Amino acid sequence: MAQSFHPPQRTLMGPGPSDVSPRVLEAMARPTLGHLDPVFVEFMDHLKELLQFAFQTENPLTMPISGPGSVGMETCFVNLVEPGDTVVICVNGVFGGRMKEIVVRSGATAVVVEDDWGRAVDPAKVEQALKDHPEAKILAFVHAETSTGARSDAEALVGLAHAHDCLAIVDAVTSLGGIPVLVDEWTFDAVYSGSQKCLSCTPGLSPVSFSPLAVETIKRRKTPVQSWFMDTNLVMGYWGTNQKRSYHHTAPINALYGLHEALVILEEEGLEAAWARHQKHHLALRAGFEAMGLGLAVPEAERLPQLNVVHVPEGVDEARVRGRLLEDYQLEVGAGLGALAGKVWRIGLMGHSCNLRNVLTCVGAFETVLASEGAAVETGVAEAAALTAFAG
Amino acid sequence: MAQSFHPPQRTLMGPGPSDVSPRVLEAMARPTLGHLDPVFVEFMDHLKELLQFAFQTENPLTMPISGPGSVGMETCFVNLVEPGDTVVICVNGVFGGRMKEIVVRSGATAVVVEDDWGRAVDPAKVEQALKDHPEAKILAFVHAETSTGARSDAEALVGLAHAHDCLAIVDAVTSLGGIPVLVDEWTFDAVYSGSQKCLSCTPGLSPVSFSPLAVETIKRRKTPVQSWFMDTNLVMGYWGTNQKRSYHHTAPINALYGLHEALVILEEEGLEAAWARHQKHHLALRAGFEAMGLGLAVPEAERLPQLNVVHVPEGVDEARVRGRLLEDYQLEVGAGLGALAGKVWRIGLMGHSCNLRNVLTCVGAFETVLASEGAAVETGVAEAAALTAFAG
Repeated sequence: MAQSFHPPQRTLMGPGPSDVSPRVLEAMARPTLGHLDPVFVEFMDHLKELLQFAFQTENPLTMPISGPGSVGMETCFVNLVEPGDTVVICVNGVFGGRMKEIVVRSGATAVVVEDDWGRAVDPAKVEQALKDHPEAKILAFVHAETSTGARSDAEALVGLAHAHDCLAIVDAVTSLGGIPVLVDEWTFDAVYSGSQKCLSCTPGLSPVSFSPLAVETIKRRKTPVQSWFMDTNLVMGYWGTNQKRSYHHTAPINALYGLHEALVILEEEGLEAAWARHQKHHLALRAGFEAMGLGLAVPEAERLPQLNVVHVPEGVDEARVRGRLLEDYQLEVGAGLGALAGKVWRIGLMGHSCNLRNVLTCVGAFETVLASEGAAVETGVAEAAALTAFAG
Repeated sequence: MAQSFHPPQRTLMGPGPSDVSPRVLEAMARPTLGHLDPVFVEFMDHLKELLQFAFQTENPLTMPISGPGSVGMETCFVNLVEPGDTVVICVNGVFGGRMKEIVVRSGATAVVVEDDWGRAVDPAKVEQALKDHPEAKILAFVHAETSTGARSDAEALVGLAHAHDCLAIVDAVTSLGGIPVLVDEWTFDAVYSGSQKCLSCTPGLSPVSFSPLAVETIKRRKTPVQSWFMDTNLVMGYWGTNQKRSYHHTAPINALYGLHEALVILEEEGLEAAWARHQKHHLALRAGFEAMGLGLAVPEAERLPQLNVVHVPEGVDEARVRGRLLEDYQLEVGAGLGALAGKVWRIGLMGHSCNLRNVLTCVGAFETVLASEGAAVETGVAEAAALTAFAG
């Protein structure tokens, strides 16, 4: 006979999910409502307003997709891309590569602009690709590459897209809530995020927002959207940009309670304060690692405060270190991926995980484990360095 | 400033979501793990085993899709259907219609076998359609039509499919846990369900299972699956039918805790006991409504115990009655859809909602509200009739 599952209490400092506030977990355990209950329908309006706040947008088509971030990504592409279209895709990590796969499956042509993993997207290359492909309809890129910790200049890239009459699709999975994501000011056309990064909700939901121009583009499609579930023409009916709500699918009610509470917490703190908190703790974490003698992999101007990519010291088995951190310290950090596998750790400071207690636990645990693994690191200095940086 | 959301405590007796056990809600509030945590990966194995138990299958490809039932439906179709295929689809309610839409968007031809809303699928018509269309590759039907309360003979229909060399895709969204769904014995090739019906978890997950023959068919596809997210070739890597787990998407961790707990509860009760409980309470509910003078809409042999479709008495405004039930009694029941709109109520007795307290609350509330609305119903008799039927 199966038993109830009681997970251990980890400290989540990987690339997401991040630590979830007890307030969010408690909200998820509130009584389930029917998805057509008038009280729930009113709740949906409040949730939409909070998402508009988080995205800094007045886009009416702003809603949480009932699936993880990869469904948010696919929703943006399959609605805006038609067979035969050309899409310029910036690939500087795992998620740009996924965009390409989705575009190809949509029957469109993907023009790939490649940059090194761990570096920002280079606007000069993008401009060249847009010049070389005047037929391009869309530019797509990842604002904050979860796989590498690199931050690209979203405002500049979207500006290039519009200068070349392209729509811009932006992956803000890891950026939203951690660094500025100004959807209206920077004129994104479609943007998606995830619930489990800097919003610190549980995984499984993907906030999205479409500009009025994107909505027009979707309405003028010549071919039907290939996915019934992801067809925003249908989802719009449920999320109420039309006058009357019509049933599309059964929303994940309790997960939405959690997202709502996470956004209430973000609004209470304020976006600017949340961005400043991520920066402040990033500097403390960095100081701790640098005191140990470990450097960060991404050039300073392109670093994400919420995802710190740290070089693995020579001769150290990175997987073994991660295993010990998890087992002995209940601390989860992420491995490097692709070209960075075995060479870096990815250390998240996202949302509710971004606090001094976690910074100190992390640098302390790394210091102890690395020393016992025989790595050439300075010991007894990391916590003090982090505290000094934190105090400013 | 937005406030935390505190939903009212409803009694959910509509077509789903059903009442969620406090055990399930509590499980969802347990600490979030990373989706690659070894403890979580082990948990996934246990969850798979519980799903195999619920579906009565040994299919290795059995897993919860990270989206609502409509994503489970679309996943089954987009993996098995290729452009140019012919699919025979039985339409006797809303969800057969949705199957057709998905098949058409997949570039395939849908041959529709229609039956009246509120009736089972007619095997004779299906046999004829399969004879008329020897090119058909798949037969698809809804086992328990949530929109009408009709139960079809899944075993017979799948037998017809195989006799005509077709694969069978079965919608078991409302049947799983409420009536027998014997995936291996009845040789389904693909089946999907929902978390929020007779499993009484919160909405947002869709258990699916594919037979080895279906998996072979997917592996032999000539064209890629149109959806990246729903491509089971990729999802299989994550849910471990391959040897090594590879990251596909971030699973909705806490929602999966809830589904696991719901399945533990089902295993504790036993499938036969759960089916018998649904039948017993259905008879009690029916006795209560019949004592009032209200009949059930679906012919007895085709009735679902977990979804009771009750005729609206002449001259009664059904929406007004539902509104009063919700407002005065915190009781949610469902409206009729399509051809049955305004003519019936859909009253669920699913999973955790299927108990005597709910039966008595429901017949009592209906009796009171209908009498005060001036309907010609017997009063003061429904609860006693329900109790007598319950006692057997």
